Amino acid sequence: MASYDIAVVGGTGPQGRGLAYRWARHGHRVVVGSRSAERAEEAAARIRTRLPDASVSSATNADAAQGAQVVVLAVPYDGHDDLVRSLADRLAGKVVISCVNPLGFDRQGPYGLDVPEGSAAQAAQGLAPQARLVGGFHHVSAVTLWGEDEYLDHEDVLVCGDDEEAKAVAVELARAVTSRPGVDAGRLRIARQLETWTAVLISINKRYRTRSGTAISGVPRD
Amino acid sequence: MASYDIAVVGGTGPQGRGLAYRWARHGHRVVVGSRSAERAEEAAARIRTRLPDASVSSATNADAAQGAQVVVLAVPYDGHDDLVRSLADRLAGKVVISCVNPLGFDRQGPYGLDVPEGSAAQAAQGLAPQARLVGGFHHVSAVTLWGEDEYLDHEDVLVCGDDEEAKAVAVELARAVTSRPGVDAGRLRIARQLETWTAVLISINKRYRTRSGTAISGVPRD
Repeated sequence: MASYDIAVVGGTGPQGRGLAYRWARHGHRVVVGSRSAERAEEAAARIRTRLPDASVSSATNADAAQGAQVVVLAVPYDGHDDLVRSLADRLAGKVVISCVNPLGFDRQGPYGLDVPEGSAAQAAQGLAPQARLVGGFHHVSAVTLWGEDEYLDHEDVLVCGDDEEAKAVAVELARAVTSRPGVDAGRLRIARQLETWTAVLISINKRYRTRSGTAISGVPRD
Repeated sequence: MASYDIAVVGGTGPQGRGLAYRWARHGHRVVVGSRSAERAEEAAARIRTRLPDASVSSATNADAAQGAQVVVLAVPYDGHDDLVRSLADRLAGKVVISCVNPLGFDRQGPYGLDVPEGSAAQAAQGLAPQARLVGGFHHVSAVTLWGEDEYLDHEDVLVCGDDEEAKAVAVELARAVTSRPGVDAGRLRIARQLETWTAVLISINKRYRTRSGTAISGVPRD
């Protein structure tokens, strides 16, 4: 299994920290990024407490992205465009995985926001045209990621993208989360459906007071 | 288990015929509807050939809807609004389940269409304001529905709606397909995500040459 140098931009949020923990736990080298180097180090230290032998360091988002092979965007949609614009030079040529969920919430619950570019992943591609954008890792709950289970093997990671090589990296990185390769859901524009599907899962979570996940049946596994 | 009188509007298409077959197979009384009474009867006869003891009859869409407790809209999105408008009086007060998938296809594959009302289910609710609209049954493949398996128990049926009683009927009707109650995914507007998710499954089917399905993990089953 290949191991990667992964920068998690927004790695202090629950989703980013949970993914960083999973990748570090299963043999990748992770840099937790944040706007604040101090907060990044706090999150990295929390992961190292649980995984003393793992490779987990910290940096500002910009420095983390600079040094990584794979950059994961795990930031809120609010402020996403400015952040990607500021990092665009550092993302050039790199595999960039967007797990951004553009959602709104009102009295009826969660809903998918209308993103002018179709999806946050497509917006990022427009702002960082030399990045090798992939959408993926939108659906696994932050609480479950941060939990004790060895693998979240009741769920699947879905990925999409127009750069087949970059997408294959994300498919491989899914193993650290679910124990299985990710499911290739097609072209980058499918990110619109993957991102807003998170509203369905949150809505189910509220109804059933649970943490739901999505599994895809019928896909051959290796 | 309650049994229902179900009219499948558009019951000659692969999705509608497959659902009609499943409901008839598991104890419901089904009327296959079509614009043409002859084509409706052909489809009903095909189902009866496989299920000689089941209750499967045929009628025009309008007559089928008139006599049913539950009306299932299993029609293409193209022409959907005109059809619902023409049936609006007959849908008043009834549980109406929309499994309509507003999708487009181009060289990149399938994609979700922008529906002005948000979703086909919401469009139907606007055109038939006295109908008790539920969205559901969008994702199970027509081929699998028409297959031999007793239940499609690797998948879930997701339903959504603003009328809790109507939604409970759809949750119950899912048992005939998956052997389990459907998953309540929230308010009617979530239909936007359920409908366009079908593009993800079709895209996965093309990549893997398979018939994929969606299962929701973490939801308590009865």
